[in-house]
Amino acid sequence: MAAGKASVFIGLDLGGTDLKYGLVGPNGKILVSRKIRARTDVGQKVLVEQLRSAARELLSIASEKKWRVGRIGVGSPGAVNFETGKVFGDSPNIPGWEGVNLKKSLRMAGIPVYADNDANCVALAELLFGAARGSKSALCVTVGTGIGGGLILDGKVYRGSSFSAGEIGHTTVVFGGKECACGNRGCLEKYASVSALIDAAKGRGYANVQALTDSAKKEEQPAVELIDRQAAYLGAGLASAINLINPEEIVLGGGFVDAYPPLLKLVENEIRQRAFPAALLTLKVVKARLGNEAGVVGAAFLGSK
Amino acid sequence: MAAGKASVFIGLDLGGTDLKYGLVGPNGKILVSRKIRARTDVGQKVLVEQLRSAARELLSIASEKKWRVGRIGVGSPGAVNFETGKVFGDSPNIPGWEGVNLKKSLRMAGIPVYADNDANCVALAELLFGAARGSKSALCVTVGTGIGGGLILDGKVYRGSSFSAGEIGHTTVVFGGKECACGNRGCLEKYASVSALIDAAKGRGYANVQALTDSAKKEEQPAVELIDRQAAYLGAGLASAINLINPEEIVLGGGFVDAYPPLLKLVENEIRQRAFPAALLTLKVVKARLGNEAGVVGAAFLGSK
Repeated sequence: MAAGKASVFIGLDLGGTDLKYGLVGPNGKILVSRKIRARTDVGQKVLVEQLRSAARELLSIASEKKWRVGRIGVGSPGAVNFETGKVFGDSPNIPGWEGVNLKKSLRMAGIPVYADNDANCVALAELLFGAARGSKSALCVTVGTGIGGGLILDGKVYRGSSFSAGEIGHTTVVFGGKECACGNRGCLEKYASVSALIDAAKGRGYANVQALTDSAKKEEQPAVELIDRQAAYLGAGLASAINLINPEEIVLGGGFVDAYPPLLKLVENEIRQRAFPAALLTLKVVKARLGNEAGVVGAAFLGSK
Repeated sequence: MAAGKASVFIGLDLGGTDLKYGLVGPNGKILVSRKIRARTDVGQKVLVEQLRSAARELLSIASEKKWRVGRIGVGSPGAVNFETGKVFGDSPNIPGWEGVNLKKSLRMAGIPVYADNDANCVALAELLFGAARGSKSALCVTVGTGIGGGLILDGKVYRGSSFSAGEIGHTTVVFGGKECACGNRGCLEKYASVSALIDAAKGRGYANVQALTDSAKKEEQPAVELIDRQAAYLGAGLASAINLINPEEIVLGGGFVDAYPPLLKLVENEIRQRAFPAALLTLKVVKARLGNEAGVVGAAFLGSK
């Protein structure tokens, strides 16, 4: 990219395990990409310094290449006040993270700073450059260790009245069911996350997810049955959301969706059997397109939409 | 009301049993109110003629009183295309109603006509003149024979991508649970509607809802237990919605909420135990204010917001 009017953007994607960060071009393409282990176990200060140091590293690369940096954006677990930049919700994977002000922490070189919840960054990336491009309304769901969600309404990220919208993983699907870390029972992510699937698979003698999907691809029982059940729970939770918000799109992502492509169709079938016919008229169920990069790309474009 | 610039508005609220209709002043007060039995069992034509005749009756009253009629609005069960006025979703209480065009059917005297789903009318009435006044986001829930819902987002009725948003009654709360008329299983309204409560109460020897609430008011078992359970299901379904859309308000209405006022607090307690703390920061749980009039008032103001 040549120097000049066009800007590059810094995206930082903090997770419970890794800190991914990069320089992103105005077309959403990652120009420089880094990943380090996030130091989530030694307190707020060290982790904030990791974020600052990552941003400085990218600023210095941009400076060498004579790219103008137009924005620093950071996605974080927990609820994030999009206006003040403060993390205020509990994030079980990063003890002691609540209370940090991400906007203030990353202020440097007079560059505008934005901070948001990580699932909202994923949704924004899919909206701008991925599977939800041009969509007026979408629910972007990432099935991983937990189940995260980001909501697009009226063509924008919808954050809710206290920056907490999109938490589809904590839809009650089994009243009085399994205890969840959120304090409630029977949450979708206790039944349909990859962690839940691994637990179920181990109970049936599978060593890991790979062994399970290999077996399912050969159409062997009980692998097929376990995955069908996973799809049924997901379909039930998503149908509830569809009946409530009637979106144009469900965008489904996460490692398992990539590892086992038939899952998408299975989930769509469950949705179409369960949701209101009137709410299905315009619905598309699609695979997320940006994969692991979505968090960095979305963070880099915070505030643009 | 004097003649002049100020208009009155016609609101028609079609239900599975009654057709309520009236003239509503610009301040949301009902000036003339009528209720007749809706002829839902003899085909589309007769019911359409009932609606037209109700509108004509109100036009004639307005004319006598020298009131200008600024709008005709109608709320109907089923999904209603707010743009075209066509009913396109199934409405089990009115067989054969699908396909009728409410806007066309009510065109008369050059007055603008609006049509919407009945639960959206209730939500609009609460937004303009009731418990959700001034609210940016609210979920208005009516607990009756079924459980209806209307969604307010960004200070307006949110209808979704195919005019089907707000259907909180069909949130799956019991995976694989009781069969619902919608085709899914374990829907909230199979566990937390007044019909569900009556079924449960009869199973425990109560003659009717009155007998149950009388007993509960005396803190007798098992009435207290049955109502607690009702509140727990409602709390679970509403907490799921709160985690997803993070509204400012839950507005709870319906005959049972009036008949047993402690229910509101019970449901609020369940919500506060179940939903994400971050999503509860700004949440108010309040009683609907417009009661049985909400449908007529909301219909009369369709298109105003």
